[in-house]
Amino acid sequence: MSRGRDVPTLVARAREGDARSVARLISLVEDGAPELPAVAAALAPYAGTAQVVGLTGSPGVGKSTTTNELVRALRKAGHRVGVLAVDPSSPFTGGAILGDRIRMQEHTTDPEVYIRSMSSRGQLGGLAAATPQAVRVLEGAGCDVIVVETVGVGQAEVEIASLADTTLVLLAPGMGDAIQAVKAGILEIADVFVVNKADRPGADATYRDIQGMLALGERGPGEWRPQVVRAVAVRNEGIDDVVAAIEKHRGWLTKTGELRKRHERRAAVEVEAIALGTLRARMGSVRDGTGLGTLAAKVAAGELDPYAAADELLKSL
Amino acid sequence: MSRGRDVPTLVARAREGDARSVARLISLVEDGAPELPAVAAALAPYAGTAQVVGLTGSPGVGKSTTTNELVRALRKAGHRVGVLAVDPSSPFTGGAILGDRIRMQEHTTDPEVYIRSMSSRGQLGGLAAATPQAVRVLEGAGCDVIVVETVGVGQAEVEIASLADTTLVLLAPGMGDAIQAVKAGILEIADVFVVNKADRPGADATYRDIQGMLALGERGPGEWRPQVVRAVAVRNEGIDDVVAAIEKHRGWLTKTGELRKRHERRAAVEVEAIALGTLRARMGSVRDGTGLGTLAAKVAAGELDPYAAADELLKSL
Repeated sequence: MSRGRDVPTLVARAREGDARSVARLISLVEDGAPELPAVAAALAPYAGTAQVVGLTGSPGVGKSTTTNELVRALRKAGHRVGVLAVDPSSPFTGGAILGDRIRMQEHTTDPEVYIRSMSSRGQLGGLAAATPQAVRVLEGAGCDVIVVETVGVGQAEVEIASLADTTLVLLAPGMGDAIQAVKAGILEIADVFVVNKADRPGADATYRDIQGMLALGERGPGEWRPQVVRAVAVRNEGIDDVVAAIEKHRGWLTKTGELRKRHERRAAVEVEAIALGTLRARMGSVRDGTGLGTLAAKVAAGELDPYAAADELLKSL
Repeated sequence: MSRGRDVPTLVARAREGDARSVARLISLVEDGAPELPAVAAALAPYAGTAQVVGLTGSPGVGKSTTTNELVRALRKAGHRVGVLAVDPSSPFTGGAILGDRIRMQEHTTDPEVYIRSMSSRGQLGGLAAATPQAVRVLEGAGCDVIVVETVGVGQAEVEIASLADTTLVLLAPGMGDAIQAVKAGILEIADVFVVNKADRPGADATYRDIQGMLALGERGPGEWRPQVVRAVAVRNEGIDDVVAAIEKHRGWLTKTGELRKRHERRAAVEVEAIALGTLRARMGSVRDGTGLGTLAAKVAAGELDPYAAADELLKSL
């Protein structure tokens, strides 16, 4: 970083809504730059000031279109909105294929909307570590609603969704999504289901399937019952219902104290990921022949078992 | 564990090919039982004695059928064969849906074949930690080829596939799999591509797509060029070619010293996973209000930034 753009200056400019400073801060996050601790320290006071909305679903259910319409509705209601589009599906290339992000171009000239595709180029712990830091940057920049959009397929996505205060799961009719949702464990993380493309054949069946599965789950008094909303995002239908469900959930979170609990859980995941990343770096690698490398060679040769090796590794840290 | 079935006795019986002792040892692995270090110590001398073959691909490409036919061919060639069927797709239920495992029933009366569906009920680090331990059990039981079958969709599967000496990636025509393979990073891990259902329309195109993509990759002299094999597993066609490709790869691994490197890399992943699991347990949880829990509360309240919290956490370990 050039000397003229030190961390406190960047954070101060981001506070004023300077998009370039926000972009620079998120790049530092993605790169796992050495300035990260300083960035985090400067942003700490703004923690928990935004509602973080996770939006997930299988490819093809209309996530980008829904996000786009959601941003429009939230802007109309006077919010400053941040969007993080996260694609962790490629462990080797780092993901972040831009694809239909083009749909959101209508918002790019709006200074009250900040949109960013995330990858994790250098972060230890990958996107699970980088995403919460990016959320902190957007909170620091004064966004009061932050939409984190992920492809809902694997465990990493479930982890990222767990960073949200409110998680929206998108389904579309005729994709066998109701069953898939159960299989992928997505049912457990959803606060709001959106049956998108609700004008298509099979939408009613999908709606009924989800309601049926929710009816099976036992809930104590005062527990949240996931809302199910129908929408046709591409025609901007049902989006107000989605916003209403998000607001209802926000009310419940605040009233029950669950919001604080979720923020603490999110912070715990974040702190743990940073700590484990640091430890991992200290352990060394199989390439350098020190620490982990030496122990791994002994295990591979049958001279040491992996538990004894792990013990030795931990003693050396 | 009852006193009469201590770890050395179980391992000794597994060495003799006693299927119940093998089953018991793998259950200890799945449960993350306290006996695990003793199991690992007893099995250490047999490390690296089997060829571990990873077999992965999207749902519907015919993984189970191919595994079944592969086992038949390997048995005919005189091998003792182990099969681990791993389904990590459900982070909440722990996976291991048996489904079409029924296809393999023809092998269940063969004492030289050991088949097991894996889940990770108690293991810290999940299947990525449990699978290598289960491989060690099968190696200890004298299996000289171990097939690890996983659903190829996310990062966890790629990690599990990286435990193999030789990784087979199954594709089927008309599923857009060639593109998907690139997206999911599967291209990088494949040693052998099997275009299954090669009698269907589009098989030639899939074959050409893969060959085309492989032609794009640069390889130094002596580097492995992934083999592409056509098969119709359901009719037992092309399976001998798959076995030949596996053997060719084994020869290359041995000749170049890459086998030792892969075993060391596998051991490093294993040792690291065990060490990180131990550290994770020491860090505490957000629920108990100690260690990580206390720090997370401060981060959520904006009193501490996550990097400073991670530093404190590491000091306390």
